[in-house]
Amino acid sequence: MSTPSVLNFDLVVLGGGPAGSSGAIAAGLLRRKVALVEKAKLVGGAGINTGTIPSKTLRETSLVLSGWRSRRLFGVDLSLRREATVSDFMRHEKVVTATERERVESRLLQEGASKFHGTASFVDDHTVRVTSPEGAVLLRGERILIATGSSPLRPPGFDFNDDRVHDSNEILELKALPKKLAVIGGGVIGSEYAGTFAALGAEVHLIDGREVLMPFLDPEISQALAAAMTANGIQFHWKKKVVKCDSSKPGDVVLTMDSGEALSCDGVLVCAGRSSNTEDLNLAAAGLTPGKRGLVQVNEHFQSTEVPHIYAAGDVIGPPALAATGIEQARVAVCHAFGETLKTGIASLLPTGIYTIPEASMVGETEASLKEKQIPYLVGRARYSDIPRGDIIGDNVGFLKLLFHRDDLRLLGVHVMGEHATEVVHIGLIAMMTGAGADLFNQACFNYPTLGDLYKYAAYDALFQVRRLAGQVSE
Amino acid sequence: MSTPSVLNFDLVVLGGGPAGSSGAIAAGLLRRKVALVEKAKLVGGAGINTGTIPSKTLRETSLVLSGWRSRRLFGVDLSLRREATVSDFMRHEKVVTATERERVESRLLQEGASKFHGTASFVDDHTVRVTSPEGAVLLRGERILIATGSSPLRPPGFDFNDDRVHDSNEILELKALPKKLAVIGGGVIGSEYAGTFAALGAEVHLIDGREVLMPFLDPEISQALAAAMTANGIQFHWKKKVVKCDSSKPGDVVLTMDSGEALSCDGVLVCAGRSSNTEDLNLAAAGLTPGKRGLVQVNEHFQSTEVPHIYAAGDVIGPPALAATGIEQARVAVCHAFGETLKTGIASLLPTGIYTIPEASMVGETEASLKEKQIPYLVGRARYSDIPRGDIIGDNVGFLKLLFHRDDLRLLGVHVMGEHATEVVHIGLIAMMTGAGADLFNQACFNYPTLGDLYKYAAYDALFQVRRLAGQVSE
Repeated sequence: MSTPSVLNFDLVVLGGGPAGSSGAIAAGLLRRKVALVEKAKLVGGAGINTGTIPSKTLRETSLVLSGWRSRRLFGVDLSLRREATVSDFMRHEKVVTATERERVESRLLQEGASKFHGTASFVDDHTVRVTSPEGAVLLRGERILIATGSSPLRPPGFDFNDDRVHDSNEILELKALPKKLAVIGGGVIGSEYAGTFAALGAEVHLIDGREVLMPFLDPEISQALAAAMTANGIQFHWKKKVVKCDSSKPGDVVLTMDSGEALSCDGVLVCAGRSSNTEDLNLAAAGLTPGKRGLVQVNEHFQSTEVPHIYAAGDVIGPPALAATGIEQARVAVCHAFGETLKTGIASLLPTGIYTIPEASMVGETEASLKEKQIPYLVGRARYSDIPRGDIIGDNVGFLKLLFHRDDLRLLGVHVMGEHATEVVHIGLIAMMTGAGADLFNQACFNYPTLGDLYKYAAYDALFQVRRLAGQVSE
Repeated sequence: MSTPSVLNFDLVVLGGGPAGSSGAIAAGLLRRKVALVEKAKLVGGAGINTGTIPSKTLRETSLVLSGWRSRRLFGVDLSLRREATVSDFMRHEKVVTATERERVESRLLQEGASKFHGTASFVDDHTVRVTSPEGAVLLRGERILIATGSSPLRPPGFDFNDDRVHDSNEILELKALPKKLAVIGGGVIGSEYAGTFAALGAEVHLIDGREVLMPFLDPEISQALAAAMTANGIQFHWKKKVVKCDSSKPGDVVLTMDSGEALSCDGVLVCAGRSSNTEDLNLAAAGLTPGKRGLVQVNEHFQSTEVPHIYAAGDVIGPPALAATGIEQARVAVCHAFGETLKTGIASLLPTGIYTIPEASMVGETEASLKEKQIPYLVGRARYSDIPRGDIIGDNVGFLKLLFHRDDLRLLGVHVMGEHATEVVHIGLIAMMTGAGADLFNQACFNYPTLGDLYKYAAYDALFQVRRLAGQVSE
């Protein structure tokens, strides 16, 4: 076998998902010579192809096509459900994912990045071999960015070859909509799909070993979200573990839980966490030691703690494993790699957006973290039903909860559940980034009727608590 | 006739719309004794009863019930239009307006405000007579807040008693949906209703004497909005005036334009501006001289320039005549009236929100105002179709345009058209209030995929323009 030729680059990026492609585009903008290696036929990674974008698109489709909003607002069933085929529901998703891929491809092209299709593995700490059916090529990078992402864990005991048993990657390839779906694992991904399939009309069972929905959330948000999801028809099975998944017979799959209960369903979605895609990379050849679940270890510049010219960003380095964060991490890594000052560190405030129905989002401190740090705080609340926009969109469960420093009413944390929560949180995010407090919202004038007014009312709530404590206003 | 008794208050508020009720609630919170006088049977004013809230609710209803989103995204007609009655479309509006009224009533009650139903007119500069079928009462206020709002102008030549000819107040009482609606006047209100009725399936003609849609908008936004409205089926008749409206025959109303053209339609909506509701107030008795269209003249504290213990807020003082602004003006007036420091002036940044389909919104400077002030600037742009959220919601026309100071990239103006534009503008509003610039958006991490990312991309656009000018990055 002849030795393949070696191609030289300023930066070799491994993985074409949100983090990898952002890193490659950023380096191209900085006039660096960039190679991007993608294992799959198409760029985009889990962000575009199997995870973030498809699931959010299907969620939007389910809300529109199922007539969910019209049922809720008007008691009118506009549903196409009975006649809709899976391809009706998936058509928009396919258009959106294709558009996103084309956008990324065209940006890569525009910034002059070279694209290589194949499996990358390290030969040494500067060189990767890219192997594809067409042959092999060696890429040498002054700097290397690992952004190979993550994949769903597939716990033993589930036959993922069965058409009825899915992980979160291939759930979107389903041939028929399940009538009764069991979702195993109530984390972000499981909760999001549970909501979408319930909106599409499936009977959804969510099974979780804990007794609190997404315990990293503010407890009020977590409880209210579980209640809202229950009201949307989702049946929770708390503190239960699935000990057996019997898909040996046609018809229903039968799940057995550790309580002894059995649950029959025609679809099973296993959301049991994700692990980093590092198994093919031959990290040892580069002098890298993977951590738990394959994680690459990095410092605050997203630079390997072991080999300083190797960087890693996105899901491959572990939590929060969100596309938004991965994109930012890759930009920071590339700036650091090339001594560029445009972005020297990742934002200290990283929001979490959860596309359940209703949505939930948070940024900054929680009550628990403030208590732990012994920071005195005040809570300002506003419900969607306190403001006209909430009534117009028919959201009678949503609320915004702001955490302010008790002394100077600086905004420390934002927690919101309700329609458009993942957008609403950004008003607070910007305010926190600039060190603003309750008075900013008191002074601001928001469009009427908008959800922006939630901030005004939550700020008043806090401001008048202070004044009531001081006896300046009526109780 | 016996002299009615005189009741004494710290504040007498005339008008129970958004401005009046906010002022009364604010004074109540400050432990002042408040009377609120409302002419109509129900509080709420145009904001709740005939204008802002009902029109925005009907807009939302039209988007949901007409299946507008499903047609646009999926080419599927979920429309109920053929079977829907006007009451189907109005049901949600009635629920929402009733809820808003109840909220205001309960807040007034909670803050101890006394409510008087009747027509107010000044007896002297501290006293108003409230006349109702039940009799008359005299209210004396240490301070008086005029917040009587505005009413649609009814130009001569239109028979508003005809069931087919409407002003913007009673359009919502229509008995049947027009099949072909002529909207006369392409200002904010006319453009909003044109969009809603087009979404409901009517053939809509928008007639305007100018040749630019809402010339106060950024020219790019104005043009793009007119194009998007045209794509939604609205037919514009520019530089035309209606010189005759013949509703003498059953069937269609016939409009004749100054060009000689005739237009037949089964519905006419006249949006010819609004005038202040001051004609019944007997302003002269209080020493007040109304300005053009009945406007009460005030200074920056919303204090009458003629009688310092009389304040006025909301539509009654003229532009911008938006509910959001009126509410803030009333709060500032009440704080000033009682020497309260909570809010000493109105925000210098007042957003404009326009609920057309798609929405448009703006805050801060325009290119024209910057040129006039000779402030050097850069424009950063991002299209909804540049970001995944835009594709997910199927908005391929929306865009965000940010104006930055050329020297320090401080944010000076925000202009946006597209779905949720009235919410999207708030991210920029908060940034401008805190003096932030392009780098804030460069550093920020927004949820993915959200519309928040528009700011990031528009900021990059500006940042890389600067770098290209300096030759630091590729063209």
